[in-house]
Amino acid sequence: MAFDYPAPFLLLARELRRLPGIGPRSAERIALWILSNKDARPAQLAGALTAAATSIHPCAECGFFATHDLCEICLQPSRSGREMCVVELATDILPLEKTGSFRGLYHALGGRLAPLDHVGPEQLRIEPLLQRIRTGKPTEIILALSADVEGEATTNYLVEILEPLGLPLTRIAHGLPAGGGLEHADQITLQRALSGRRPVAER
Amino acid sequence: MAFDYPAPFLLLARELRRLPGIGPRSAERIALWILSNKDARPAQLAGALTAAATSIHPCAECGFFATHDLCEICLQPSRSGREMCVVELATDILPLEKTGSFRGLYHALGGRLAPLDHVGPEQLRIEPLLQRIRTGKPTEIILALSADVEGEATTNYLVEILEPLGLPLTRIAHGLPAGGGLEHADQITLQRALSGRRPVAER
Repeated sequence: MAFDYPAPFLLLARELRRLPGIGPRSAERIALWILSNKDARPAQLAGALTAAATSIHPCAECGFFATHDLCEICLQPSRSGREMCVVELATDILPLEKTGSFRGLYHALGGRLAPLDHVGPEQLRIEPLLQRIRTGKPTEIILALSADVEGEATTNYLVEILEPLGLPLTRIAHGLPAGGGLEHADQITLQRALSGRRPVAER
Repeated sequence: MAFDYPAPFLLLARELRRLPGIGPRSAERIALWILSNKDARPAQLAGALTAAATSIHPCAECGFFATHDLCEICLQPSRSGREMCVVELATDILPLEKTGSFRGLYHALGGRLAPLDHVGPEQLRIEPLLQRIRTGKPTEIILALSADVEGEATTNYLVEILEPLGLPLTRIAHGLPAGGGLEHADQITLQRALSGRRPVAER
């Protein structure tokens, strides 16, 4: 009979293997490193996991990560009552925020319409969005969803229910990504880049 | 001012980034997944880390991972007093064990001679090895260290101090790896494969 690692080791490797991008080999390698490298800090990692999992929850307004009832973004007074940017996931907010070109509020839907996965409008934070629009009266609603089929379907659905509100409704531009050459762009991207063309003077 | 994730999130990402093979982007992605995916089990992972780190330590005899004073391998009675296989690290033991072709005891040195990193013979578990050989009187000592420069230097050092004991002393074969074609083998591997050639009848 061949021996294996002790049970607590195997349990640790099994939990590590559940993380995204960590396969069975990496999980074993990381577990070995944690248990045999003097630079490893298993207690600190365990503490950080527990602290993050217990103290972080979705912001009651926008859905971003928050340690209090509202997140840092929603708490900033200068932001209220301006543009509102609708995204799919809380994780989409920081990339937009880091561009530095948006100073309004966000609203994460918590996903997008995906009938095959049983995600309908009721599963998304659409009712809270309408509520916030009624209360906050933003100057513009910007739809910033993914440029794939499900993102498009969700955008179309939102356009349908948001247009009756009579507020300026826009969506982020689709086209050639920065640094992307024409020869590498797919047909749909080029099609959208063409149909989204703007007069050169308009900048 | 642009916002960032809450402090507990950043702390978690920082701890994850310390793991081997996890860069800053993966660390952020894993932290986001842990905090926003319903399949994530941060408490279980934290528990597994704590349990493994507190219950697992090196076997007092061979240096393998153990939850008691001795590891499972050293505890098996049928193994004592036979061959002893010397390896660099505790993590080298299981790969050998999994081959199923060795039924003796192991001894992990805890590293190899590396003068540039201030690792001399005193930093390795060489004195305990001599002690175990005197007490256990193995029928053979097999040196199974890495086939690189530092592994070779350590092997040579061990040969020098173990030969006077008068026990059968061997080292694992160096040559063409399984599935390796001659055209992919480097010069040193081929040189060792040639010099380590054996009569065809001898199997």
